[in-house]
Amino acid sequence: MINLEEKIHDHCGVFGIFAPEEEVGRLTYYGLLALQHRGQESAGIAASSQNHITLHKDMGLVDQIFTEDIINKLHGQAALGHTRYATEGASKLSNAQPILLTASFGEFALAHNGNLVNYQQLKTFLLNKGHSLNTSTDSEIIARLIAEANGQSFKEKLINGIPQLRGAFSLVILTADKLYAIRDQWGVRPLTLGQVNGKGWVVASESTAIESIGGEVIREIKPGEMIEMSATGMDSFHQIKNKNTGFCIFEYVYFSRPDSTINSSLVHQTRVRAGQLLAKKHPVKADYVIGVPDSGTSSALGYSQESKIPFQEGLIKSRYVGRTFIQPSQRIRDLGVRLKFSPLAEVLKDKTIIIIDDSIVRGTTLKQLVKLLKSKGVKKIHLRITSPPFRHPCFLGVDVSRYKELIANKNTIEKIRKELGADSLAYLSLTDLKKSIKVKMNFCTGCFNNKYPVRKES
Amino acid sequence: MINLEEKIHDHCGVFGIFAPEEEVGRLTYYGLLALQHRGQESAGIAASSQNHITLHKDMGLVDQIFTEDIINKLHGQAALGHTRYATEGASKLSNAQPILLTASFGEFALAHNGNLVNYQQLKTFLLNKGHSLNTSTDSEIIARLIAEANGQSFKEKLINGIPQLRGAFSLVILTADKLYAIRDQWGVRPLTLGQVNGKGWVVASESTAIESIGGEVIREIKPGEMIEMSATGMDSFHQIKNKNTGFCIFEYVYFSRPDSTINSSLVHQTRVRAGQLLAKKHPVKADYVIGVPDSGTSSALGYSQESKIPFQEGLIKSRYVGRTFIQPSQRIRDLGVRLKFSPLAEVLKDKTIIIIDDSIVRGTTLKQLVKLLKSKGVKKIHLRITSPPFRHPCFLGVDVSRYKELIANKNTIEKIRKELGADSLAYLSLTDLKKSIKVKMNFCTGCFNNKYPVRKES
Amino acid sequence: MINLEEKIHDHCGVFGIFAPEEEVGRLTYYGLLALQHRGQESAGIAASSQNHITLHKDMGLVDQIFTEDIINKLHGQAALGHTRYATEGASKLSNAQPILLTASFGEFALAHNGNLVNYQQLKTFLLNKGHSLNTSTDSEIIARLIAEANGQSFKEKLINGIPQLRGAFSLVILTADKLYAIRDQWGVRPLTLGQVNGKGWVVASESTAIESIGGEVIREIKPGEMIEMSATGMDSFHQIKNKNTGFCIFEYVYFSRPDSTINSSLVHQTRVRAGQLLAKKHPVKADYVIGVPDSGTSSALGYSQESKIPFQEGLIKSRYVGRTFIQPSQRIRDLGVRLKFSPLAEVLKDKTIIIIDDSIVRGTTLKQLVKLLKSKGVKKIHLRITSPPFRHPCFLGVDVSRYKELIANKNTIEKIRKELGADSLAYLSLTDLKKSIKVKMNFCTGCFNNKYPVRKES
Amino acid sequence: MINLEEKIHDHCGVFGIFAPEEEVGRLTYYGLLALQHRGQESAGIAASSQNHITLHKDMGLVDQIFTEDIINKLHGQAALGHTRYATEGASKLSNAQPILLTASFGEFALAHNGNLVNYQQLKTFLLNKGHSLNTSTDSEIIARLIAEANGQSFKEKLINGIPQLRGAFSLVILTADKLYAIRDQWGVRPLTLGQVNGKGWVVASESTAIESIGGEVIREIKPGEMIEMSATGMDSFHQIKNKNTGFCIFEYVYFSRPDSTINSSLVHQTRVRAGQLLAKKHPVKADYVIGVPDSGTSSALGYSQESKIPFQEGLIKSRYVGRTFIQPSQRIRDLGVRLKFSPLAEVLKDKTIIIIDDSIVRGTTLKQLVKLLKSKGVKKIHLRITSPPFRHPCFLGVDVSRYKELIANKNTIEKIRKELGADSLAYLSLTDLKKSIKVKMNFCTGCFNNKYPVRKES
Repeated sequence: MINLEEKIHDHCGVFGIFAPEEEVGRLTYYGLLALQHRGQESAGIAASSQNHITLHKDMGLVDQIFTEDIINKLHGQAALGHTRYATEGASKLSNAQPILLTASFGEFALAHNGNLVNYQQLKTFLLNKGHSLNTSTDSEIIARLIAEANGQSFKEKLINGIPQLRGAFSLVILTADKLYAIRDQWGVRPLTLGQVNGKGWVVASESTAIESIGGEVIREIKPGEMIEMSATGMDSFHQIKNKNTGFCIFEYVYFSRPDSTINSSLVHQTRVRAGQLLAKKHPVKADYVIGVPDSGTSSALGYSQESKIPFQEGLIKSRYVGRTFIQPSQRIRDLGVRLKFSPLAEVLKDKTIIIIDDSIVRGTTLKQLVKLLKSKGVKKIHLRITSPPFRHPCFLGVDVSRYKELIANKNTIEKIRKELGADSLAYLSLTDLKKSIKVKMNFCTGCFNNKYPVRKES
Repeated sequence: MINLEEKIHDHCGVFGIFAPEEEVGRLTYYGLLALQHRGQESAGIAASSQNHITLHKDMGLVDQIFTEDIINKLHGQAALGHTRYATEGASKLSNAQPILLTASFGEFALAHNGNLVNYQQLKTFLLNKGHSLNTSTDSEIIARLIAEANGQSFKEKLINGIPQLRGAFSLVILTADKLYAIRDQWGVRPLTLGQVNGKGWVVASESTAIESIGGEVIREIKPGEMIEMSATGMDSFHQIKNKNTGFCIFEYVYFSRPDSTINSSLVHQTRVRAGQLLAKKHPVKADYVIGVPDSGTSSALGYSQESKIPFQEGLIKSRYVGRTFIQPSQRIRDLGVRLKFSPLAEVLKDKTIIIIDDSIVRGTTLKQLVKLLKSKGVKKIHLRITSPPFRHPCFLGVDVSRYKELIANKNTIEKIRKELGADSLAYLSLTDLKKSIKVKMNFCTGCFNNKYPVRKES
Repeated sequence: MINLEEKIHDHCGVFGIFAPEEEVGRLTYYGLLALQHRGQESAGIAASSQNHITLHKDMGLVDQIFTEDIINKLHGQAALGHTRYATEGASKLSNAQPILLTASFGEFALAHNGNLVNYQQLKTFLLNKGHSLNTSTDSEIIARLIAEANGQSFKEKLINGIPQLRGAFSLVILTADKLYAIRDQWGVRPLTLGQVNGKGWVVASESTAIESIGGEVIREIKPGEMIEMSATGMDSFHQIKNKNTGFCIFEYVYFSRPDSTINSSLVHQTRVRAGQLLAKKHPVKADYVIGVPDSGTSSALGYSQESKIPFQEGLIKSRYVGRTFIQPSQRIRDLGVRLKFSPLAEVLKDKTIIIIDDSIVRGTTLKQLVKLLKSKGVKKIHLRITSPPFRHPCFLGVDVSRYKELIANKNTIEKIRKELGADSLAYLSLTDLKKSIKVKMNFCTGCFNNKYPVRKES
Repeated sequence: MINLEEKIHDHCGVFGIFAPEEEVGRLTYYGLLALQHRGQESAGIAASSQNHITLHKDMGLVDQIFTEDIINKLHGQAALGHTRYATEGASKLSNAQPILLTASFGEFALAHNGNLVNYQQLKTFLLNKGHSLNTSTDSEIIARLIAEANGQSFKEKLINGIPQLRGAFSLVILTADKLYAIRDQWGVRPLTLGQVNGKGWVVASESTAIESIGGEVIREIKPGEMIEMSATGMDSFHQIKNKNTGFCIFEYVYFSRPDSTINSSLVHQTRVRAGQLLAKKHPVKADYVIGVPDSGTSSALGYSQESKIPFQEGLIKSRYVGRTFIQPSQRIRDLGVRLKFSPLAEVLKDKTIIIIDDSIVRGTTLKQLVKLLKSKGVKKIHLRITSPPFRHPCFLGVDVSRYKELIANKNTIEKIRKELGADSLAYLSLTDLKKSIKVKMNFCTGCFNNKYPVRKES
């Protein structure tokens, strides 16, 4: 895939439903469509019926993988689904999720969003105990650890096994007759609980997936909480105590959809407020405010509201260019960001504009964008970023291992501005970012200030 | 495919390039990505090299159909491409374009955007002359008619054959050593000419496809004009005279991308002006103006600018739900428009809002949308439409045959308003629509007033 | 496909059935399985039902192409099928058969076994009349010629159109409500008529295909005969008169299955008699007679019966190696014929053996075989061939265009023997070959003596 | 797959090669082609290169699964391959072999021919120790047991782990830098060692696979023997002692190819001798001896040699009908064995014939065959079977679980004769069968006399 974006990626979206009266496979399919933005490389659904779990997974987008015939086979009382994004090397079918295994207690399927920081230690532990592994994923490590944990019942195995995991993990697990949802004790990645039709239970990475199938959002799964959904209802049977939590602040900044609500805060509104705060703290005169679509739009509206500078559409996003595997020729490569964003030259010519983006990782895209816009006659460009400088890599479920250079790691803001060719550049402070979110909670802000709730172990 | 939209569809996008120094297959691929919105059902590319034309076409999206291996085989001095949307029955590979045939003058490939109104007459004519047909497309009729037209040279055959065609047809034709572009004498569908690198020649349904590969737009192909692109340059060798032209006004209203320029008028700007005129003629008090994404956004901005009512994002479009082939269960069906548009309830609750859309065809979507928004607590909804009531079917390349009921055909505006459940409803007049486009030209406005430049023959 | 054989190939097998009370698609599938040896490159079935013809064809073997779902769609009152072998260049899906076209009289599908000798003339004729072609097959030429022939009814078109064709053509044609079978007036390729269940009608390239679905063989379609099968029964409505017929003698020698009966003569028995005559005319002392499997086995039995020299299995044929597309490494290439035939060294060591084969085209296989057997300790090898020296290419449906050198074209028998490394070599004379067939009829023996019933036109 | 045969099936064929100077993936491909008859459901190849093992496996025939591109990726110093046949329920990709796992000592791939009799016990043992399983195959059980066996080195793990296995298992195992071959201590299934080019080492289920790639057969792997092949040569590093061996006698009777040599005895010759002994012990007057192709042919020749009754081809086997998945209609079902065997009625009419087959399992095929031949006018039919009555099921790698009724289990030979409709019936005695094999060794003859070297554990 040509790297037309420099955006960081979250690894996955998970979805689970226990609802004997519903078409669980079909609803999971529609739930995954709503979570497609969280992983576009592979997807899968497992459904449990009559003590047997059926699984279908493949490489590709959700609507390419599933046909009516396949969906019809994914029936039963409960189901779970997964969409996946992976870094290059490990992009293959055998690593796709959900994982389906048979253990002493029977079949179980597992879907995972996040990243373990003690993956190597746990892998060595398992191999030394004589286990053998089929994949190179931490999801398999989690599944095999649960299977071999002490405990008579599955619940006991979870209570004994999960504490061995360190890192970010929102898990959904399907057994023959029950569905489980578990969130790591640091609460890094999101996981939301809902109900469908007042009887069935749903969990999903984002609230919008629950609403997209007509469900109602109940609450977030708490950090360290384990819940069981079964014919006898929902049971929050255990919670690992931990004070040092840290919810990934980038879910508000970029990962989650604007129509998702996390901890009662609508993501769109937090972005609007971030734009407003940016306008207050970093005002500048201009003809128009424009957002880099799609993630910058909400904040650009906020900046416009606060500054009274008109919001304008200035960049049209090419919807179909993002996933191409065709190598660009030199001519195409030279076009760079032009393939992805089409500037409305007629609108922007001879104007001074403020461009709102959510973050700068490598800076490549914004640099090309500034150059393109200036070549189209834009007079001045002021960059405003709705988060602090991105300075540190992340090992909790975000693919920053691909970025050898974080532009903000070694450079001052002035140097970054020069490198990007902008007329001014300003970032939102961490304090203001938190203010825009308006939720009392601990955040993981490691990428900004190197403070992680749980660190990579060596 | 479940009909989650009631939007009308244009049938096709075409792209052609004559540029011996470029990778013509690769550039055509990128050109088709920019035209993907004009047809998402099948696509194909033909390239001519060493007197042999190579063709690859298949069902699906452009980025699903072509691999690096395939693109590498599509080399030569010239190429053409096509993206297609078709009505249900005829959605199959044998009807995909381009069409490749061998005639007395050698191989040729043809791609077509539009619709013939004398298809049945020409089909009967060909069959009666002893021809046999492989497909049920008017594109094949055009190709076989050209092959059997009088004339020694290919140019002569075009000059003699094309006048037999009545209707809408923007054609790109590839022979062993030349590329041709032809537009019907009524000038119904668009076709734009450009250059790449100052030497190669490009034609495309929309200017943005030319710009997306780094080309420069030169001008529109004129109604009835035939041009030849070859090693000796570009030659506009013939034009069928016709005063009664009519460019499809819906290209400005809905079909074309906002970043396309038609007759020197940027589509986005015409939509902003339409929104402004709508605000002038049909003002109403409200808290927010929101557009139905994506087509209503430009006009909503215009309405906001003129009325000073704040523009707001109120509906998030689900990007991945549009193309699913999975049958929705009753639960999903009941969700209706909710699957496609996610309302930002927190933002809109207790507010009076103006919703801007480009047109109302059946009305189903808007009706569900109004109901959904009211259920989320929206106080009042004022609908503003950036075109006149859509009253008549189209036979010039738009799939309105699927719509048994055009809501505006039999109903007054007040009745439509009631049916939709809106608190007010207003349309832009045809005069104002034309004013917003700001181009001196004749339009086909048949869908609004039953005045077509060329009519279906019985 | 690596050329592990030097055997010549017939181009195709055809099958047709008119039987409203039967599952026509399913029976055609089983009929094609019985004709698979006549073409292993592509296959297809067309079925007519309720005035609509449904077609499915693809590259590959019959059992790879058709699934239960596809067969279920191929229902109706009549069907036809085709298996195809082609020379390299034209091995692609668009050339696969049956061909389906719409003409003035409606849809029709056509399957063809044979080769036209005036293909170029007819192609030029059609192109000059303004026709355009989709493929490079003579089958398409035949279909388009019929469509454009004079005549009100389809029968009239056949009566007027077919005489323009020169060469070998056994045709089966399906229209909305009837099935037609036609054989060229020279009677080159076989076509047999049968009945199923006393009511339905069947035609097939070989009688064994009729018997394999439980049908009864009635008779051969006569040279130049045209028959129609419909709800009103079977009607032999026309026959082109011609005295100069010539049935391809190679159908007896090699092409047809040993269990097929042609003109009341069981192919196996004609081969046994050829072996007997060979033993009489070309006796030699030996320990064993072995046949090159599978085609040489019947004749080896005959030779053994006549000579009283024991028949022995000496070569085991590898059943799965014939169709591989994997390039052999040098090691594999050096093994040559060993990949295909495994010699029973323990049995043949220190023995003098007679090897019976049906023909020698290039001689490559036999040369490698002789070398292999001698390396395994075989004392003496006497080659006996059940047909005369193959000296001339064929243009009537056999792929000899690939063979630049026919070993018998320029060499004496003694020179061929030396080249092959055999201790003796003898061919059956044409007189004896005809005697073995025991049928009073004219044969095409062009490959032996350059006497063809109809010649290639220049 | 419709059951057109009543033949029993062996489960698998295995192939391994350690030869740094050869194209190991390509040679394994050709080796698998030679073993295709041992498993036609799925196939796979794993190759080790630069400490990484690459695997490709899929459902289908070997020549359908592998393309040139795939073979090119299977390079390295060693490779192994597998062809698989499975009983219905477990016919899916996840059960295909080879299996690839990562254990404490690195990656390893395993291919297995045979069946464990203590599968359930070992599965329970592993699950109770906390292991989780991906498949329902005993091959996975073997792989995981080895991984968790005691031992520092891989050799030690084999020496400690393999003795836990009871049943039939010919194993080939690939690690990053070595290849292992192991045979169960009862020596049930075959495994032969060879060399290629005097340097590389090869193992295969049958000697003919070694010879098909130009290798030389060295000897059988001994019961209980473990060998290692590496850059330092071949090392037979361990042998589990066991006196109670039993080589599956059906490898001589039916499973192995006639051109394979087992323990220096050519399978074809043992079958010829079985036919001769049958003629001595159970003579009968007749016009012809015919064999049921392909397995009965060698023995029919032997019977003919001994009895002086002429050998005749009387049944032509349809080569392409065996693997169809298309449901036969009632008409086709009624044809039964006719689809598979085409009788040469003209040859056999009014004759008394002896039919030689290798075994009778259910008797369905022979019953239909006798009926078919009698309906074609055969006067008398004498059945002669080259093995004793098949009375007991097998749990050592042969799929007899599908056969609810073994016709010989409850019936006398006279009753069987009546049931089959034959005029006489005789079996070869176990003593004579062993005499025909001419090898001093212990056999598993459980299917004849219920004496197995190792029994199913309860």
